Amino acid sequence: MRHHPTFAAPTPFGDGHGGDLSAARRAYPLAPEPWLDLSTGVSPYAYPIGDLPAEAWSRLPEPEALRALEKAAALAYRASEGAAALAAPGSQAIIGCLPYLWPARRVGILGHAYRGHSDAWRAAGAEVDRVEDLAGLADRDVAIVVNPNNPDGRLVPAEDLHALARELGEHDGLLIVDEAFMDFVEPAASIIPAMPTRGVLALRSFGKAYGLAGLRLGFVIAPVELAKKLRAALGPWPVSGAAIALGAKALADADWLATARRKLTADAAALDEILLSAQFEIVGGSPLFRLAAHRDALKLFDALARAGILVRRFASRPALLRFGLPGSDADRARLRAALSFGATRK
Amino acid sequence: MRHHPTFAAPTPFGDGHGGDLSAARRAYPLAPEPWLDLSTGVSPYAYPIGDLPAEAWSRLPEPEALRALEKAAALAYRASEGAAALAAPGSQAIIGCLPYLWPARRVGILGHAYRGHSDAWRAAGAEVDRVEDLAGLADRDVAIVVNPNNPDGRLVPAEDLHALARELGEHDGLLIVDEAFMDFVEPAASIIPAMPTRGVLALRSFGKAYGLAGLRLGFVIAPVELAKKLRAALGPWPVSGAAIALGAKALADADWLATARRKLTADAAALDEILLSAQFEIVGGSPLFRLAAHRDALKLFDALARAGILVRRFASRPALLRFGLPGSDADRARLRAALSFGATRK
Repeated sequence: MRHHPTFAAPTPFGDGHGGDLSAARRAYPLAPEPWLDLSTGVSPYAYPIGDLPAEAWSRLPEPEALRALEKAAALAYRASEGAAALAAPGSQAIIGCLPYLWPARRVGILGHAYRGHSDAWRAAGAEVDRVEDLAGLADRDVAIVVNPNNPDGRLVPAEDLHALARELGEHDGLLIVDEAFMDFVEPAASIIPAMPTRGVLALRSFGKAYGLAGLRLGFVIAPVELAKKLRAALGPWPVSGAAIALGAKALADADWLATARRKLTADAAALDEILLSAQFEIVGGSPLFRLAAHRDALKLFDALARAGILVRRFASRPALLRFGLPGSDADRARLRAALSFGATRK
Repeated sequence: MRHHPTFAAPTPFGDGHGGDLSAARRAYPLAPEPWLDLSTGVSPYAYPIGDLPAEAWSRLPEPEALRALEKAAALAYRASEGAAALAAPGSQAIIGCLPYLWPARRVGILGHAYRGHSDAWRAAGAEVDRVEDLAGLADRDVAIVVNPNNPDGRLVPAEDLHALARELGEHDGLLIVDEAFMDFVEPAASIIPAMPTRGVLALRSFGKAYGLAGLRLGFVIAPVELAKKLRAALGPWPVSGAAIALGAKALADADWLATARRKLTADAAALDEILLSAQFEIVGGSPLFRLAAHRDALKLFDALARAGILVRRFASRPALLRFGLPGSDADRARLRAALSFGATRK
């Protein structure tokens, strides 16, 4: 039994979804606790839970409360009149279900993007391939753009997406714009405010920006007709009482979001400085993560894991690591020290 | 504007899903607060929430924790080796999604049952009709049996369901057994322990028996092949961190469930006595609700609502009301008084 695989050995984790500390602990049982998890793009700042009423747990969520949550989301995301915002237990719940609600044969995804999309469409039997430029998506049944993209942060202008949606609409295609990391990007980048009336839907994640990934809350914003179909599939109680109570409050709390944005901007700058000091090249990112290249990336992944720090790696692109934002000086010092120590090892 | 519709007037609520106190408050704004909600089949005894770790909110739920929850469910529901238990954000989430995962044209539902099923299949374009005996389901693409049935409590023996599943399997049909109200029924009644290896799936609700409907947790138990397809659609984070923490603990807590069962048995007997005193005929029920007939049922529905007590009525069967269980002497006294007062009004 090998407790400490070397950087060259295939490791059973780190390339899947982020956040799997249990797998990290199995692979690195001698790493110091607690682990510092930088393997996701979840904000280190959690919206305060406060005291939830007992009814949020015990009672079925009421239609009026769900509508209030969805109205708060429509306002926060500036949805147009012709579009509806529907709550879902995480945007992943929509991603998994969409291939069945909207059957398609030929699916294209822009660039190297969040793998949940391709996993879901392939599971439903579609052909999925990666397309390197937007024009290559126009003839697909379904085109998927993660915007800004995870992990590289590439941002497609909203006007280009609108043009693509029009082209897709000519042959009843569907454009899916996954705005999971849009919350802290400039408002004009979102497709939602000027969403066309057909052939497009947008996904938003609540948990990432509000640091509440365990709450399972996300939204799909869709033209009214498509929204009806989604509503029937999601059913009358799509999200928990806690998600309704916290989501409605947080989405209306512009001050909290502005404060989080300021802190995250400073955190990202501090992370950049640490990565540059450690000879990384920063090749992309969003306000919630950085993608960085290093010729010894896998060795550093291993060194970080031995120090109890989990980041995200990519089997197909071994020179890249993705770093979530450390949210405290202590966590930054720990990252800096582990990178510095890792660089000295052979 | 009429604040107090008479019993004969069509009311805008009470015939849909239970639990919509907001609609009740709009229809009966002068009713005393707090309302007593007996319109659902949710247990009045909530499993204690305790202190949830901050990580249950902030972090993405981990695969290992989800597996532990699903293992606890498989044990509690006594799933066989050939079947898997998958967590979902309420069994309704599965109900809404299934018509797309398993396309079918001809769907049959046994008797007058929970309407979520027919709503979902019709939304997906299937023909749905009600079948009065089990044999009438054998030639369908999909057959649905709510067992025990909501609202009348009819219980189909597991061996009859096994026979039906075999017949359906001969033409690749699917039997869906919704065991949302099975938790307090005798163990031999569940189809899960001897589930066949194809053509059948069972649904279980966590929120009803554990009094945590707002948590959104339910399970689908399915043969391994079908479970794989469901897993892909549900995705890697189907339920909240709170649902994982509480669900795993509660499902392993046989003592708590036994205590709840004893209290509910006494509560149901006390409710029966109240209903019989008020000249209701009890025509069915389960350990979590009673279905009762009265020639003045709609008048009594109205009288109860004026007294701030919401029960469930059925537009197509106006002589019937369904009562959830009052869980305290005070609630029982309030129900008794409102029924008594209602009976004296003309």
